[in-house]
Amino acid sequence: MQMGEGVEWGLHCCVTLGWLKDEGPVSIRRLAAWFDLPQEYLKKRLQALTRAGILTSAPGAGGGFSLARPPGQITIMDVVTALEGPGEAFRCAEIRQRGAGAEGETFRGPCGISRAMRRAELAWRRELAGQSIADLMEGSPGAGERTRRNYARMRG
Amino acid sequence: MQMGEGVEWGLHCCVTLGWLKDEGPVSIRRLAAWFDLPQEYLKKRLQALTRAGILTSAPGAGGGFSLARPPGQITIMDVVTALEGPGEAFRCAEIRQRGAGAEGETFRGPCGISRAMRRAELAWRRELAGQSIADLMEGSPGAGERTRRNYARMRG
Repeated sequence: MQMGEGVEWGLHCCVTLGWLKDEGPVSIRRLAAWFDLPQEYLKKRLQALTRAGILTSAPGAGGGFSLARPPGQITIMDVVTALEGPGEAFRCAEIRQRGAGAEGETFRGPCGISRAMRRAELAWRRELAGQSIADLMEGSPGAGERTRRNYARMRG
Repeated sequence: MQMGEGVEWGLHCCVTLGWLKDEGPVSIRRLAAWFDLPQEYLKKRLQALTRAGILTSAPGAGGGFSLARPPGQITIMDVVTALEGPGEAFRCAEIRQRGAGAEGETFRGPCGISRAMRRAELAWRRELAGQSIADLMEGSPGAGERTRRNYARMRG
């Protein structure tokens, strides 16, 4: 079970856009160069974040991406859901209802395996929903200043 | 992000083998018929559980799979790890160290994104490690008796 690499990309872009919030939209070209990422693949991820209402996208020259809401109102869970989809990692196919083992039984309610997996996934979601982009920004003291300095240099 | 279907198969097989512990090894043919699963695919999953020390496999006619240890000593986490591998779902590629954004910085310690993802994954693992095959068996009262009855009918 593995999360797509886009989650790391999306989270770092959100944190960086949080630090650059006074600089106006940041172009996809600059964001790709910032992390040395393939521009077209990154663009698809950022478009998914835009569809989810996490980023806004301004078109044209001088356009680019910005956070759509304050970084304290964007959780890691929001970003993961936007990029990985809302589905649960464990999907129960109800195999207990199939085959010779199921004879003579009517199944009511979800099975214990499905419940246990869901409980674990809720614990995971709770942790990710309890951390915002603002928390990530606060957890990297000094990085905001460096980001603005390097961005000013990049803009030349 | 999605877990393989083998996790549901493996967990249901472990629970069923827990209920059938006095019946001797259960053949792969019967386990596949029990849940109406493709025998060769199921076999690969059960072989992975055997390599992980969760099942034992007896060869030949009358052979098959059994639990390698008491069901209270096999956690859901054990089964998930055996089937999905020990790797974390989020794998940090350290993109923060790349590109124009990293200039002028030496990175010490893991980044906050990686730490947050790990904390969430630990919460998930803790839940799964806190539930054993015995807990799943206890959570389905009556299913043990039905399982033994249907298995006796299957053996004819």
